[in-house]
Amino acid sequence: MKNKSALHESEGTHPSSEVNAVMAKKIRDSRRKETSIDEIFTRLRAGDKSALSQGITLVETNQPKQQEKAAQLIEKCLPYANNSIRIGITGVPGVGKSTFIEAFGVHMADAGKKVAVLAVDPSSSISGGSILGDKTRMETLVNHENAFIRPSPSGDSLGGVAKKTRETIILCEAAGFDTLLIETVGVGQSETTVHSMTDFFLLLKLAGAGDELQGIKRGIMEMADAIVINKADGENRKPAERARAEFRRALHLYPAKETGWQPKVLLCSAYYKEGISEVWELISDYEQKLKENGNFSKKRHEQNKFWLLQTINEHLKSRFYNEPEIKILLKQQLEALENNETTPFEAAAFLLQRYREL
Amino acid sequence: MKNKSALHESEGTHPSSEVNAVMAKKIRDSRRKETSIDEIFTRLRAGDKSALSQGITLVETNQPKQQEKAAQLIEKCLPYANNSIRIGITGVPGVGKSTFIEAFGVHMADAGKKVAVLAVDPSSSISGGSILGDKTRMETLVNHENAFIRPSPSGDSLGGVAKKTRETIILCEAAGFDTLLIETVGVGQSETTVHSMTDFFLLLKLAGAGDELQGIKRGIMEMADAIVINKADGENRKPAERARAEFRRALHLYPAKETGWQPKVLLCSAYYKEGISEVWELISDYEQKLKENGNFSKKRHEQNKFWLLQTINEHLKSRFYNEPEIKILLKQQLEALENNETTPFEAAAFLLQRYREL
Repeated sequence: MKNKSALHESEGTHPSSEVNAVMAKKIRDSRRKETSIDEIFTRLRAGDKSALSQGITLVETNQPKQQEKAAQLIEKCLPYANNSIRIGITGVPGVGKSTFIEAFGVHMADAGKKVAVLAVDPSSSISGGSILGDKTRMETLVNHENAFIRPSPSGDSLGGVAKKTRETIILCEAAGFDTLLIETVGVGQSETTVHSMTDFFLLLKLAGAGDELQGIKRGIMEMADAIVINKADGENRKPAERARAEFRRALHLYPAKETGWQPKVLLCSAYYKEGISEVWELISDYEQKLKENGNFSKKRHEQNKFWLLQTINEHLKSRFYNEPEIKILLKQQLEALENNETTPFEAAAFLLQRYREL
Repeated sequence: MKNKSALHESEGTHPSSEVNAVMAKKIRDSRRKETSIDEIFTRLRAGDKSALSQGITLVETNQPKQQEKAAQLIEKCLPYANNSIRIGITGVPGVGKSTFIEAFGVHMADAGKKVAVLAVDPSSSISGGSILGDKTRMETLVNHENAFIRPSPSGDSLGGVAKKTRETIILCEAAGFDTLLIETVGVGQSETTVHSMTDFFLLLKLAGAGDELQGIKRGIMEMADAIVINKADGENRKPAERARAEFRRALHLYPAKETGWQPKVLLCSAYYKEGISEVWELISDYEQKLKENGNFSKKRHEQNKFWLLQTINEHLKSRFYNEPEIKILLKQQLEALENNETTPFEAAAFLLQRYREL
């Protein structure tokens, strides 16, 4: 066209204008994207629960593009995070976790607290289900204006679920939620995971027949800041009191916590809403004491550091052990080890040498 | 010379003969080296303690050439290893570990057992000292024909000390030692290390004033296969019996061990040589039960696997964290984390990306 006639020279701008249109669209799209994250952020900061949900959905996605947006949102939220108490709650199925969270959450929400309930459930990645999926068990809380309930994210590893949960905590806090309840069913290492992302760790128990302390998972007692014996009502009251005495004795066996906190044992009946305010008083007391002695923020900083190093170490390992050649060689070395043909150190040196040469 | 006259042609062989001399020396040296390891091995297999000492010195060296020889020796010894009971012994200073090991070791050695005493003491790398250095406290044992005592190796890390100790175990077993006592003072993670290389883990305690269970290091109770309360004589007898009851109650709180073994509590007076044979009967009972249910060799195989993976993981980490650029960047990211400017996951992703690019 350009070469047809000098008169048509003005038309030469058309293609250039089209290019501009493409660019303009790109800019518009990019602005729309920014607006979108900006908008989610603004609404989220105003306490809008649907914006918070949207944000969490971004955090939970595995798409690289959405992940980038999630990272932008988290970055915006970071300065407004951290202003909360994060409470981990664990207990075996049947202990009444949902009933307890409902009663405790409503109690807090009625008192003007903004309560967010999250869950870490590594098994949900297999079953596809969620421990908070059955929201009918939290009818009052789910409809409370001061409460926000989010079912457990799915993930292909506990590490993945943990990352999503920790990022969700940031969004919830930026949205003004000051009381975070993070539930776990206690499959595999999930209690340790929840313990390492919460300020206060609460173990729910029942007074049952026989020895109360048998059957408590290894290490759980040492993590607990409080043991709450649920269903301590009616005929259960006496056995619950006996269990309380036994748990107190058992807790006494452990050395004092680094935070200076001495774990406590309480009774409650979540169903009859008895003993709920005492649990909150205990947690308030804990928060106050640890803030006074500086251990509250110290613990959070240590948790941040733990998660940073943990994430790095897991990545280094997964890169090594997922290397196809290493997989084959490792299998061979393990066999040689089983037959006493090599030592663990010789085998390790061999594998590391081969990994370096890859 | 060669070119001077044809008559001197025969002299042409001289330089070649000199070359042969050099080569012959090399061959002789190399043979001498081989003979040396062969000789150490042969003498070691015959139960010669000085050959065993020589072998252990090789294992403990950090010189690459000597390490190669050590690896050759270990390879030769491997088929003859494993035929022993490896007993881990821990307890705080003052509990009478040396006296106990002396009494227990002499009891075993008198009964025809071949007793080797080793130590894992990560602190010795700092102090340069050794927990078994004060051999005067084991006068009888050290001179017993059936006993061999080796002070703790020095090392710049617990991992290094552990490697040397595990390899020393192989040499001791190949030398016919069937009863291995591996002592630790319990600094840092050293109990866990000793626990993960022994068949039976014995915790020495005293009956003291106040609550016996307070002050027990986290996790030690769960590792113990037996708690032996020492100095249970004279006026100490009654408090020791009370402590025994308390420890029994406490051990009862833990879930049963995977090996099917129920940990026991015993009293002894190492000084008066009382209760020593009961400790041995207990360990024999343990060995028999675990060999019957297959857990004895299963545990050893698991320990081998643990050490292989542990060694790999430690190397992967040390390579990452010792990278000079990573050191600087990690410091920066930790500061950003402290100021809530980043999340643990974002910081980890950044550092891993930079590490990949190195």
